[in-house]
Amino acid sequence: MKLQAGIIGATGYTGFELANLIHRHPHAELAWATSESSAGKRLSDLYATPNDTLLIRQEDAPIAQADVVFLCLPHVASMDAVAQVRAARVSAIDLSADFRLPDAEVYRHWYGHEHTQSALLAESVYGLCEVNRSSLAEAELVGNPGCYPTTVNLALWPLAKAGVLDPRVIADSKSGVSGAGRSLKVGSLFVEANENLSPYSIGYSHRHIAEMELVLCPYVPDLDITFSPHLLPVNRGILSTIYVDLDPVLSELQIRDIFAADYANEPFIHLLPAGQVATLRHTVGSNRCAIGITSLPRPGRWIITASEDNLLKGASGQAVQNMNIMFRLEETAGLV
Amino acid sequence: MKLQAGIIGATGYTGFELANLIHRHPHAELAWATSESSAGKRLSDLYATPNDTLLIRQEDAPIAQADVVFLCLPHVASMDAVAQVRAARVSAIDLSADFRLPDAEVYRHWYGHEHTQSALLAESVYGLCEVNRSSLAEAELVGNPGCYPTTVNLALWPLAKAGVLDPRVIADSKSGVSGAGRSLKVGSLFVEANENLSPYSIGYSHRHIAEMELVLCPYVPDLDITFSPHLLPVNRGILSTIYVDLDPVLSELQIRDIFAADYANEPFIHLLPAGQVATLRHTVGSNRCAIGITSLPRPGRWIITASEDNLLKGASGQAVQNMNIMFRLEETAGLV
Amino acid sequence: MKLQAGIIGATGYTGFELANLIHRHPHAELAWATSESSAGKRLSDLYATPNDTLLIRQEDAPIAQADVVFLCLPHVASMDAVAQVRAARVSAIDLSADFRLPDAEVYRHWYGHEHTQSALLAESVYGLCEVNRSSLAEAELVGNPGCYPTTVNLALWPLAKAGVLDPRVIADSKSGVSGAGRSLKVGSLFVEANENLSPYSIGYSHRHIAEMELVLCPYVPDLDITFSPHLLPVNRGILSTIYVDLDPVLSELQIRDIFAADYANEPFIHLLPAGQVATLRHTVGSNRCAIGITSLPRPGRWIITASEDNLLKGASGQAVQNMNIMFRLEETAGLV
Amino acid sequence: MKLQAGIIGATGYTGFELANLIHRHPHAELAWATSESSAGKRLSDLYATPNDTLLIRQEDAPIAQADVVFLCLPHVASMDAVAQVRAARVSAIDLSADFRLPDAEVYRHWYGHEHTQSALLAESVYGLCEVNRSSLAEAELVGNPGCYPTTVNLALWPLAKAGVLDPRVIADSKSGVSGAGRSLKVGSLFVEANENLSPYSIGYSHRHIAEMELVLCPYVPDLDITFSPHLLPVNRGILSTIYVDLDPVLSELQIRDIFAADYANEPFIHLLPAGQVATLRHTVGSNRCAIGITSLPRPGRWIITASEDNLLKGASGQAVQNMNIMFRLEETAGLV
Repeated sequence: MKLQAGIIGATGYTGFELANLIHRHPHAELAWATSESSAGKRLSDLYATPNDTLLIRQEDAPIAQADVVFLCLPHVASMDAVAQVRAARVSAIDLSADFRLPDAEVYRHWYGHEHTQSALLAESVYGLCEVNRSSLAEAELVGNPGCYPTTVNLALWPLAKAGVLDPRVIADSKSGVSGAGRSLKVGSLFVEANENLSPYSIGYSHRHIAEMELVLCPYVPDLDITFSPHLLPVNRGILSTIYVDLDPVLSELQIRDIFAADYANEPFIHLLPAGQVATLRHTVGSNRCAIGITSLPRPGRWIITASEDNLLKGASGQAVQNMNIMFRLEETAGLV
Repeated sequence: MKLQAGIIGATGYTGFELANLIHRHPHAELAWATSESSAGKRLSDLYATPNDTLLIRQEDAPIAQADVVFLCLPHVASMDAVAQVRAARVSAIDLSADFRLPDAEVYRHWYGHEHTQSALLAESVYGLCEVNRSSLAEAELVGNPGCYPTTVNLALWPLAKAGVLDPRVIADSKSGVSGAGRSLKVGSLFVEANENLSPYSIGYSHRHIAEMELVLCPYVPDLDITFSPHLLPVNRGILSTIYVDLDPVLSELQIRDIFAADYANEPFIHLLPAGQVATLRHTVGSNRCAIGITSLPRPGRWIITASEDNLLKGASGQAVQNMNIMFRLEETAGLV
Repeated sequence: MKLQAGIIGATGYTGFELANLIHRHPHAELAWATSESSAGKRLSDLYATPNDTLLIRQEDAPIAQADVVFLCLPHVASMDAVAQVRAARVSAIDLSADFRLPDAEVYRHWYGHEHTQSALLAESVYGLCEVNRSSLAEAELVGNPGCYPTTVNLALWPLAKAGVLDPRVIADSKSGVSGAGRSLKVGSLFVEANENLSPYSIGYSHRHIAEMELVLCPYVPDLDITFSPHLLPVNRGILSTIYVDLDPVLSELQIRDIFAADYANEPFIHLLPAGQVATLRHTVGSNRCAIGITSLPRPGRWIITASEDNLLKGASGQAVQNMNIMFRLEETAGLV
Repeated sequence: MKLQAGIIGATGYTGFELANLIHRHPHAELAWATSESSAGKRLSDLYATPNDTLLIRQEDAPIAQADVVFLCLPHVASMDAVAQVRAARVSAIDLSADFRLPDAEVYRHWYGHEHTQSALLAESVYGLCEVNRSSLAEAELVGNPGCYPTTVNLALWPLAKAGVLDPRVIADSKSGVSGAGRSLKVGSLFVEANENLSPYSIGYSHRHIAEMELVLCPYVPDLDITFSPHLLPVNRGILSTIYVDLDPVLSELQIRDIFAADYANEPFIHLLPAGQVATLRHTVGSNRCAIGITSLPRPGRWIITASEDNLLKGASGQAVQNMNIMFRLEETAGLV
């Protein structure tokens, strides 16, 4: 008997990606999928796909028939929906921002909304698989990480944990347009994004900074991160070019050892050999994060490049990886 | 004293393109520009441009202060606006479909609306410059041609006029996404159009067929045209690959002579030499239409390839060319 | 014990795609891979991939250790290499054009070379899976089809076989740039292909016409096909827009029945419902061919749209499908 | 009588762009153009253009008939060609790197070649128009700036000159593929660059750093710049996202005043208003550099965004601007 998965909000890019991942998963199947705007239609009416899953209304979703429910709703909208899933004692993996930050006050600061289900925050585990694997194995509620923070956190966590990372960090990130979702915005139009490159939300204003601080501040309490996202004319992929100062006594070999200690056996981390930098091509279409380490002439200065597919390791792929961990399936199942 | 031009509807792609063309025109200047949705803003608030023209409400437009008004409104919306301009005895160049078709009944058939200003249709001249130049020189109301028909008509008009074109024609056309305008549609989103190619409105259903019949049927009354538009992942440009049967006694040289007789001195027609085919690159960024002639082994079979920039020769560039003709300016002024 | 596969010529786009497909295949594994230009390097030196398969020289390939050898060489170069594989009594799937056409004279006409292994042509089976499945199940040498003909043949074969296809056909095809391979040509440069669309080899000159005649002429001996390829600014995907005349007494339902009779149970044919047209998005990333049927107002006139991923169903995916058929594996194994 | 311009090396992207700019220039005309590889052909044989300028061999170029010669050769190859032009007492604008750096030793360090014409370095003026305008007005030999340094230098020069720029600077730059030229490299292939983003030459290794030090070190002697170029999937455009520390007592208004003092009247500098960031769209297709200023919460921290069209302000456009300055033409002539 396959694991029964439900998807709430299956018609956005992450929901549709999840529907396809579950469809191909050897040990799980899609029990039901909801859409507020397109209930009664099929996925094949909305996307050029043979996947003709019927979409139902969220209120009609037979939550209790699922072993796990993925929520692909906008933030705020997800809070009560997650509570409903948990009330039915069904495991929830929330792809919105609503259950990533354990502190309701921090949430309010960045998202500008009161958290209506703050009691549930205590049981939610931040779903960065390589960092929180053992907690995730016990979790029944997972806050699936944001796309940008996954690259930055995977690139910096080993360094932070090893105590060699200087607090001042600059992360210059570039994301494909699918990161903006399928909603209708002028900036997401083809003619606007194509043959263009646009910085946006630069200057300590992008909400994803909160997740970087969540993962890194336990090791670097006075973290001072500058994060600059850019809209890139590609469908998928994030590349973060991260400028860091590390303990200047460390050789490149020692730094590579720090990464290898954490990641050498990670199936979804591709540590690049010396001399190579991460590119989108390393990861788009896969659930991997690729990490490159480049030295600068002045001692202690380094550039870490990290890439991922924003809809896979940056969203739906990592969500499936979390499901695999939570349900003791092979962690790579359905992801290669 | 420069010619004073007004633009009604300056914030879509054609309106913005026109504003920039007028701005660079040696003998014209932008007197005013309107926008229903963005009145009070500047063009530089809406586009990444230093052009900071202030946008006013349409009802506040000082029509009488203009020598010529360009209307860049959706069809139907343009009818009464044109009438208002003409009531002020100001010349009008309408970029919508409302004044292209002289027959109100044909208009209703293709556009599904009654024409509220059908009396004005008699004075409107179809603005295909190379075909109607002498009438345009006398015109005070011009229906500026659609983007697709400009390629198809310029490619076939010499052949039709020479009486050598078989009625059965297949035009397989491909257009960049700017042809869909700046309105918010799922199909115009970057992620939907990029790395994709989509036929749409195929099967004798696209409204632009009416303009092909308008120009060609006087010479080929039983014209039987199949027109298949495709959405192409580029910002600008249309390429039409047109399959025709011509009088089989004609040699390639004779066919080229037919084109040369009409176009050899046309500044905006680029007749390609034997062996070359039209590509988007031949014309994007210019007001030109490039035309290539390719033979097939069976006698009388030919492929005509024709390209243009859909926002220039296919819309705003041809509109300025029409203005130049109407006001006896050098026809290429502001267009090179 | 998994099926042992060798790849001769693993560094082009089709060879690399095959290496990855075999890598993920549940019942096959990559025994060895060759490269003339990059022997001694690893795939990960040439592509942004964690696949670090070592490349060996073709002359060092342990052919006899393989159960099946895929050849991804240019045409002409493949002839003797195939003969060598067959001399070792190992099954061969040739992705070049050298073993697609059974008649050495036809080969010479289109490719301009004598066939040095014409004796082997008799045993070669044309690898269009849906058409030749039973012969392929017995084959030890397969000529894997060209990318363009796969779309055109799959779109027309049911109609030709049913005796309802008029000989005159126009196929206007558009292909992504990967179809041109990884060799260094000005036309394949980013700046040349991007924001462009170029017809090429139009006018009964493209070699792939031979494969269309191979598949269709048995049913339509006087086939009169016009085939117009265009270079499209996308990485992957072919869309063919095909204009046909069918027996005018047939209703759309009857035509759909003709297709359904052949394809309803085909795992890799996606017959689109009435009103839908094939787009690249339907198939890119999958081994599918999507087929849409659109009527025109005049009786007997139809447009068939067909799309595929040129590196999957149009090359390496179909090669794996052929391997699955030849070795009695589940036909979809490793392809979903 | 128009200024007579010659182009040595007219078939690369910068040479072709120059040929078109000169063609449209109101006060200059193209006297001759050379190509080593394509002599005897016309530009229209190489590019999809109606510009059918005949290409001659470099040794046949009637240098003395020109008032100004533009050299669009690779570095090293340009040295002796420039010397030959100067020997004929004709003004030279060199678009290679050979005459940008006044110190032959610095040249050798970055470019790995001895400078064979080091005597000419003394008379060469670095062609960053806004910075060196008065020297350029007297120059007969100009070293036209590199594409990347033009953005970085225009963004930082006012700050450096005002004495408020901290030496440590990080410039994260992204360039369209035309910056790599028209030579055949795997990395410039469409399939490699499209849907990808690749850092390259990061880690104080890109030669363009020398020009940043040239312009900024006179004011910031201990400049410590980290420069990270990325290959971006667009045809044209460079965006540099530059992280700087400025004197923390300065308000945003004061910083804007510093920029305005230098640039308020510059026709080709687009100083963006508060709250706006530079994007490619601001400048591609124009000779402008757009500059945005964004504050960070910590005092003294700023992000400067700067964009340009790499073939215009970053190469051929600035070369024409230099010609205009040298020959006392209106500085914007032929550039709008």
